[in-house]
Amino acid sequence: MSSKHYAKPLNDLIRALSGLPGIGGKSAQRLAFHILSMNDGDANAIAEAITEAKRLMKYCSVCGNVTDTDPCGLCEDGSRDRSVICGVENPRVVAAIERTGDFRGFYHVLHGVISPMDGVGPDDINLRQLLTRLQKDDDAREIIIATNPTIEGEATAMYIAKLIKPAGLRVTRIAHGIPVGGDLEYTDEVTLSKAMEGRREL
Amino acid sequence: MSSKHYAKPLNDLIRALSGLPGIGGKSAQRLAFHILSMNDGDANAIAEAITEAKRLMKYCSVCGNVTDTDPCGLCEDGSRDRSVICGVENPRVVAAIERTGDFRGFYHVLHGVISPMDGVGPDDINLRQLLTRLQKDDDAREIIIATNPTIEGEATAMYIAKLIKPAGLRVTRIAHGIPVGGDLEYTDEVTLSKAMEGRREL
Repeated sequence: MSSKHYAKPLNDLIRALSGLPGIGGKSAQRLAFHILSMNDGDANAIAEAITEAKRLMKYCSVCGNVTDTDPCGLCEDGSRDRSVICGVENPRVVAAIERTGDFRGFYHVLHGVISPMDGVGPDDINLRQLLTRLQKDDDAREIIIATNPTIEGEATAMYIAKLIKPAGLRVTRIAHGIPVGGDLEYTDEVTLSKAMEGRREL
Repeated sequence: MSSKHYAKPLNDLIRALSGLPGIGGKSAQRLAFHILSMNDGDANAIAEAITEAKRLMKYCSVCGNVTDTDPCGLCEDGSRDRSVICGVENPRVVAAIERTGDFRGFYHVLHGVISPMDGVGPDDINLRQLLTRLQKDDDAREIIIATNPTIEGEATAMYIAKLIKPAGLRVTRIAHGIPVGGDLEYTDEVTLSKAMEGRREL
């Protein structure tokens, strides 16, 4: 919510902030006034963090994760297990699985799931790149599909399994330790660990 | 919350955002990823809105409101009633009262209330400036004190009344239409209008 009773630079800030997800008009107003009350250095540090993140962050050409180097640090980590690749919906799930400390393989970020209802087909997610990657990769033995336990996540898992299994790879699905309809991103480490451990053959 | 599993520019952005009020670690993460997914123009527009608001917004030397001109648009508005000045805690209350459309006088933004428990004394708010302003102002006849109906807000109102009444000015208090402990900033226009209307002599 902006107001004709605020000056333009303040209104512009309120409008810019209220475009962010989960930030309504009142929150945007409160945040804008907070930013005005901050010292110049701290406020400009936020602006710079936004500009710098947009300038420096890109997608890893190997796994699709967000990164400031290409390939990303995870793909470049020689100590990891080359035989396993875990497919996930988004970079936040990579971070969530990394926080468990249990998984030592590699990732592939799909950037979405197949969802015909939303007009998202197999070509709209980072799936072709996974197939190309697997063709060149002689070490991969197992693909763990860790999409969310939603209808679309399950369907995407089945679709990927059908594509990959003929190549002789083991395709597994993260276990249903996570409540159906839940979100991997917000699952606690222990549950997420158990779900990884209890993965089953597709 | 930042994570060692994110690259530095992303971590920096998450950290910067989580310093804002009401934005926890998970929200900061979600916002940061949203910003990464925005097109460059939209994301940089947020950064610029922050920088520009910090650069252009200042406090009105007359009333203390936030403004991009000095004196502010309200103080410069010749159509307003010079006989009334309304004292408020912060600029958000100015905007809230302006939204009622009923009040045609001027404002004085105190930027806080007297609160000995928090170490805020009369000299720590924009009060001395009000007294100086009133000494030079031959038109003012009434001061409406519209601080919040909290213990500190009431005490501040009483304190100001005691200072100003000897000068022969009428000092009024916004009516208790607002629930005690509530916040003027979030009061609906009708209640706020009624509270202004029912103001009583101190």
